[in-house]
Amino acid sequence: MKHDTVLNQLAEVLESRKQAPADSSYVAKLYANGLDSILKKVGEEATETVMAAKDGDKDKIVYEVADLWFHTLVLLAQQNLHPDDVLNELARRFGMSGLVEKANRHS
Amino acid sequence: MKHDTVLNQLAEVLESRKQAPADSSYVAKLYANGLDSILKKVGEEATETVMAAKDGDKDKIVYEVADLWFHTLVLLAQQNLHPDDVLNELARRFGMSGLVEKANRHS
Amino acid sequence: MKHDTVLNQLAEVLESRKQAPADSSYVAKLYANGLDSILKKVGEEATETVMAAKDGDKDKIVYEVADLWFHTLVLLAQQNLHPDDVLNELARRFGMSGLVEKANRHS
Amino acid sequence: MKHDTVLNQLAEVLESRKQAPADSSYVAKLYANGLDSILKKVGEEATETVMAAKDGDKDKIVYEVADLWFHTLVLLAQQNLHPDDVLNELARRFGMSGLVEKANRHS
Repeated sequence: MKHDTVLNQLAEVLESRKQAPADSSYVAKLYANGLDSILKKVGEEATETVMAAKDGDKDKIVYEVADLWFHTLVLLAQQNLHPDDVLNELARRFGMSGLVEKANRHS
Repeated sequence: MKHDTVLNQLAEVLESRKQAPADSSYVAKLYANGLDSILKKVGEEATETVMAAKDGDKDKIVYEVADLWFHTLVLLAQQNLHPDDVLNELARRFGMSGLVEKANRHS
Repeated sequence: MKHDTVLNQLAEVLESRKQAPADSSYVAKLYANGLDSILKKVGEEATETVMAAKDGDKDKIVYEVADLWFHTLVLLAQQNLHPDDVLNELARRFGMSGLVEKANRHS
Repeated sequence: MKHDTVLNQLAEVLESRKQAPADSSYVAKLYANGLDSILKKVGEEATETVMAAKDGDKDKIVYEVADLWFHTLVLLAQQNLHPDDVLNELARRFGMSGLVEKANRHS
């Protein structure tokens, strides 16, 4: 596995947990609790990222940004979106050439 | 370019802008204004992600998550951190095998 | 004027600005731009409160909490709610005896 | 008790709990856990206020704004600040005449 496929691998994991019982994992519980519980975590982790950065603690920044990205990945999965959608949007903005072909993911 | 290198390419762009004059780009201005201005944007974009999700507007969710990830990438660059640090942390948590070798980036 | 009527006086000011043209004041512009613009400010000011507290700067904490309360007051006004609704809720939770009589404000 | 003294009464309650053992109440526990635990709650409650407003649920808005104000009051108390400091700042901005006399609260 190459490092840069981490987001895609995580997306697969998150997709697979949609079928799992609510008490089988942290993510399954987030799905079961619904959109608001996921959004609450996005807000929380953003605040914790800010606090870690104000502390100037690099390990904590990495940890909290990982938490923040993770919960946005859960949000994307819950909405039947994919990290490639976000990466394509970033590539588009910055004039990068390699937009990912999208199958009709949202259909 | 493969899609999954978007984060790394963006990290290079963000690194290169550190040398640029403050009025040469949006990012150069964020660097010049300092950490608080970057953190303020992280908080803002998290709130806008929450609002987009409550609207159930998938295009807006992608757009706002892109904004949120982008400003966390600016934060990482400003702190001499790299998206691979975050991807490694995510890979570690989920037992993925492909941790990226890190040169002593923070030294 | 007694100090503790500040919230009520502010609520009156905010109510009166609902009739004003959008370009007549900051608040009139917030109303004109709609709910999302107000909520975006609530999120922003919460983040700035967190940053001020991490800086340990008491003057800035007071300033940012004032900003945060102010924008929640704008939210209440925009929703035809009143600071007394919030104060009553707080009084109720803490077993305070002096709940304010509410006329049918929301009807 | 008049309704508009709710903030001052709450400030007294919050002050008194500073002496209490950490396991004696929710607030005592927040103090014991320190500034970051309070700030995390400020961020959380701001996000929940935004979500309640997007739902257009007036009762929930009142409830979440009460939560948000409450945790900012805990922050003020923890920093040896007082709601009057914030009310004075608001009064000053809006040209209200009744600024509260401050004893040297912060000294």
